[in-house]
Amino acid sequence: MTPKQPTALDLPMIDPLPKETQKYFDICTEKLGMIPNVLQAYASDIDKLNAFIAMYNDLMLADSVLSKLEREMIAVVVSSVNKCFYCLTAHGAAVRQLSGNPKLGEMLVMNWRAARLEPSQVAMLTFAEKMTRASAEITDADRQALRDAGFNDRGIWDIANVAGFFNMTNRVASATDMRPNDEYHAQAR
Amino acid sequence: MTPKQPTALDLPMIDPLPKETQKYFDICTEKLGMIPNVLQAYASDIDKLNAFIAMYNDLMLADSVLSKLEREMIAVVVSSVNKCFYCLTAHGAAVRQLSGNPKLGEMLVMNWRAARLEPSQVAMLTFAEKMTRASAEITDADRQALRDAGFNDRGIWDIANVAGFFNMTNRVASATDMRPNDEYHAQAR
Amino acid sequence: MTPKQPTALDLPMIDPLPKETQKYFDICTEKLGMIPNVLQAYASDIDKLNAFIAMYNDLMLADSVLSKLEREMIAVVVSSVNKCFYCLTAHGAAVRQLSGNPKLGEMLVMNWRAARLEPSQVAMLTFAEKMTRASAEITDADRQALRDAGFNDRGIWDIANVAGFFNMTNRVASATDMRPNDEYHAQAR
Amino acid sequence: MTPKQPTALDLPMIDPLPKETQKYFDICTEKLGMIPNVLQAYASDIDKLNAFIAMYNDLMLADSVLSKLEREMIAVVVSSVNKCFYCLTAHGAAVRQLSGNPKLGEMLVMNWRAARLEPSQVAMLTFAEKMTRASAEITDADRQALRDAGFNDRGIWDIANVAGFFNMTNRVASATDMRPNDEYHAQAR
Amino acid sequence: MTPKQPTALDLPMIDPLPKETQKYFDICTEKLGMIPNVLQAYASDIDKLNAFIAMYNDLMLADSVLSKLEREMIAVVVSSVNKCFYCLTAHGAAVRQLSGNPKLGEMLVMNWRAARLEPSQVAMLTFAEKMTRASAEITDADRQALRDAGFNDRGIWDIANVAGFFNMTNRVASATDMRPNDEYHAQAR
Amino acid sequence: MTPKQPTALDLPMIDPLPKETQKYFDICTEKLGMIPNVLQAYASDIDKLNAFIAMYNDLMLADSVLSKLEREMIAVVVSSVNKCFYCLTAHGAAVRQLSGNPKLGEMLVMNWRAARLEPSQVAMLTFAEKMTRASAEITDADRQALRDAGFNDRGIWDIANVAGFFNMTNRVASATDMRPNDEYHAQAR
Repeated sequence: MTPKQPTALDLPMIDPLPKETQKYFDICTEKLGMIPNVLQAYASDIDKLNAFIAMYNDLMLADSVLSKLEREMIAVVVSSVNKCFYCLTAHGAAVRQLSGNPKLGEMLVMNWRAARLEPSQVAMLTFAEKMTRASAEITDADRQALRDAGFNDRGIWDIANVAGFFNMTNRVASATDMRPNDEYHAQAR
Repeated sequence: MTPKQPTALDLPMIDPLPKETQKYFDICTEKLGMIPNVLQAYASDIDKLNAFIAMYNDLMLADSVLSKLEREMIAVVVSSVNKCFYCLTAHGAAVRQLSGNPKLGEMLVMNWRAARLEPSQVAMLTFAEKMTRASAEITDADRQALRDAGFNDRGIWDIANVAGFFNMTNRVASATDMRPNDEYHAQAR
Repeated sequence: MTPKQPTALDLPMIDPLPKETQKYFDICTEKLGMIPNVLQAYASDIDKLNAFIAMYNDLMLADSVLSKLEREMIAVVVSSVNKCFYCLTAHGAAVRQLSGNPKLGEMLVMNWRAARLEPSQVAMLTFAEKMTRASAEITDADRQALRDAGFNDRGIWDIANVAGFFNMTNRVASATDMRPNDEYHAQAR
Repeated sequence: MTPKQPTALDLPMIDPLPKETQKYFDICTEKLGMIPNVLQAYASDIDKLNAFIAMYNDLMLADSVLSKLEREMIAVVVSSVNKCFYCLTAHGAAVRQLSGNPKLGEMLVMNWRAARLEPSQVAMLTFAEKMTRASAEITDADRQALRDAGFNDRGIWDIANVAGFFNMTNRVASATDMRPNDEYHAQAR
Repeated sequence: MTPKQPTALDLPMIDPLPKETQKYFDICTEKLGMIPNVLQAYASDIDKLNAFIAMYNDLMLADSVLSKLEREMIAVVVSSVNKCFYCLTAHGAAVRQLSGNPKLGEMLVMNWRAARLEPSQVAMLTFAEKMTRASAEITDADRQALRDAGFNDRGIWDIANVAGFFNMTNRVASATDMRPNDEYHAQAR
Repeated sequence: MTPKQPTALDLPMIDPLPKETQKYFDICTEKLGMIPNVLQAYASDIDKLNAFIAMYNDLMLADSVLSKLEREMIAVVVSSVNKCFYCLTAHGAAVRQLSGNPKLGEMLVMNWRAARLEPSQVAMLTFAEKMTRASAEITDADRQALRDAGFNDRGIWDIANVAGFFNMTNRVASATDMRPNDEYHAQAR
């Protein structure tokens, strides 16, 4: 089956895909029921695809002071500021799924301040939002607010890296009109 | 010699470094006369370090429709919008060096519109700046402007990825108060 | 059944409600399966409730050059700029329902530019967005763009009034932390 | 006497006006010496006119925790942020008249922070301004600031509704290039 | 008569004033019926006062491609963007006076786009507004628009200097809470 | 030697220059090794040149509560917000020179928050930045913060005037595409 172009750019996937890539995509199909379009988009450029997967998997799936749900919450809040259709769709679904709370996913997409979160999560999202809107104005006081909310320096590092990452992907997605897989929309409602 | 902390976070480098990392850092010292502080900062977390290096090297050093200088120009313009001290310092130096034109480096740091660039570079930096300020407002017309300026879709992809990347690193650097190596300031003046 | 407070303000509904109001609320329950919280919020103040209902019903339900779907599309786009949780939830559901296209509702909530709309709808939403962000900068050229897209002056009037209305309700909702009924979230997915 | 068009739209008043409307307009002429152009503009569409009048009269003239002057002060401050020529003219005149202080009207039009107001009015206008600029960022702390300044929840409700209303009318006026009656300019100087 | 402090700073006028200054102030009193508070404010610092007067008189009163009214129009539009109470009051009065059109003064204070100006004045104010809001984004195209509207390079120079000057005085006035003389408010209504 | 045009405007220097001006320019050449282009730009208009020089010399070189370095620091921070190529180049060099700290000059150009300054300088630059970005929002609290940091009212006055001045010159320079002398770039690195 030939996937239709996942972005507005005419950059077809390498064909045939390298064996390792094909294997990774087969696992996606098996586990997720789809190959996320972001991966298909990067598959025209295997070095960038591998770098992207390595960074993504480390940030979002590896061990961290932050739970997987918290990392997805950062993803959605950053994407909401940047109004990125792709990332809001894919990571909004992830928040609904990981939290078992569809409404939480909606609130983070629409306006995270509407969600009544615990103080450490408010601190985490406040920092991620400031990084997104006005990173140049971050000072020691902002880092201290995270420490006061219970994060150690490793936690601050992880928040910074996750929030940074989605400021990259949001922009790549919007710059190329990347389209999320239709499957996400109905998930975990 | 023990480097002092490269960020405001108390996250020391893994000690001893993995053999591969140590080798990479030795090459940096040999070739650049220093280990860039961003690498030292990531060296508390080897998986993130490796992912960062892989992505960086692919984007900035591998083959591309864009010259190395053009990629550094994007880096500086994005960092100027985000007012990132680390990246402006390191990549401002790179523009001065690669272009042999110290004034060009200064102009991109201060206000890229002051530089009298050729139309394709104006188009490239206009797109990178819009990605940085208002990525959600990018439409087909913006991509078409790049095509009209002579970029093919691979070139647009590369512009998008480089501009996206510095929107990540600018924010990680500002969020952690990452300090550039002092060596950069006097280079290629 | 006593509804819990629909806003952060302690302003209980008039009890008992005036007969006309009770009848209207009963119709809501029958037709919609709920009394929208915005009506419950206003029901502490019957004159404001009546004024609100009269204006709402005229704008959103009465005859207009604009279809009901188009009016809901304006509602969502305005609410997306203003990041109003209440209105995005309620009117996002309405777009999903009236269009039979759940993805359209999502796209308008997240970033209307991601939706591939016909030119007259693009013109309509461009005008509504400018009214929301920078109404003072609207000039004859903006009105002319609507005429060029096929709207007559009655249509421009209706667009202006619908877009204006949600700039009011978004702000009242956010100012009072108004909460949408939970029923909306799962509707028409 | 045929009034010239009160907006840039070609939407003549219903002719003849419904008896009730004509009576209302006659009262305006008698009491104010003019029919405010906003009413003439809405008179092409009697249902919208009636809804507008009902809401306006309830908000601005009915009983409230807020004095009539305070409601007009909110109107002017909101309109100053939105730079609405119509509303600044009409409600600037109202502030001058109700306060007997022409300079107060001027200061609210130009920059309300220049007026040396009592703390409860500062709190009220700070809230109205935040509603206008950044309603999505309003939190419990903002409502608490109003309570600390002496407003009860009914007062907060009224502030929210008045500030919301002018965010609607400012935008309708600017969207249609609505022109204030010339009479306002010289009033109460 | 001892004037009360014209700013929020406790910086009394030099006493006695230098003979030249006293003479200049006497002429103001005679011609304008007052000593503008900005001059009283600067009179604590005679060198700054003299520099200010020299620059002001050259810019606003000396020969120029621009009429005196046009220079006052720029003053008001710049001050409207910056919301400077002092300058809007004083130069709003000047526009009313020089134009013989009180409404024009009001429109420029409130929203210059509401005034139906001739194309060359629209071009002039568009440039002045862009200088105020986003001077770094001015390019040859903006200067060309002025030339297309009939201004020669001397005219552009004068526009730039007048618009620049009020971006200075607006900020000094707001920074020090400078209060305009009460006389301005009722002038030329 | 005929200097090439220092701006994008075709406004040649008066030729011959008035004797006083020629003498002043000769002193510049002798002391600075160049005639700053801003003076050459103004030399098409001797009255404006004289007013500019008088104001500049009073603000930047005369006695003040502020050191010369502090005044140059304000100049650079204001120019960084406004992204003025001319002023960042010329006054960035001045900060490097007066401080003997090239890195300080760079940091103020790029992001002054990266510099670890003493509290009184942070207060001074915070005020200058707010004057530049949002002068209309300055209140007594902002002036009090300066007093708390050790500035008397004369110091506040001087800060306000220096910060105001560069908000003028930044805009004149950007409006006319004024180019700094090449000599600045390599100075004091």
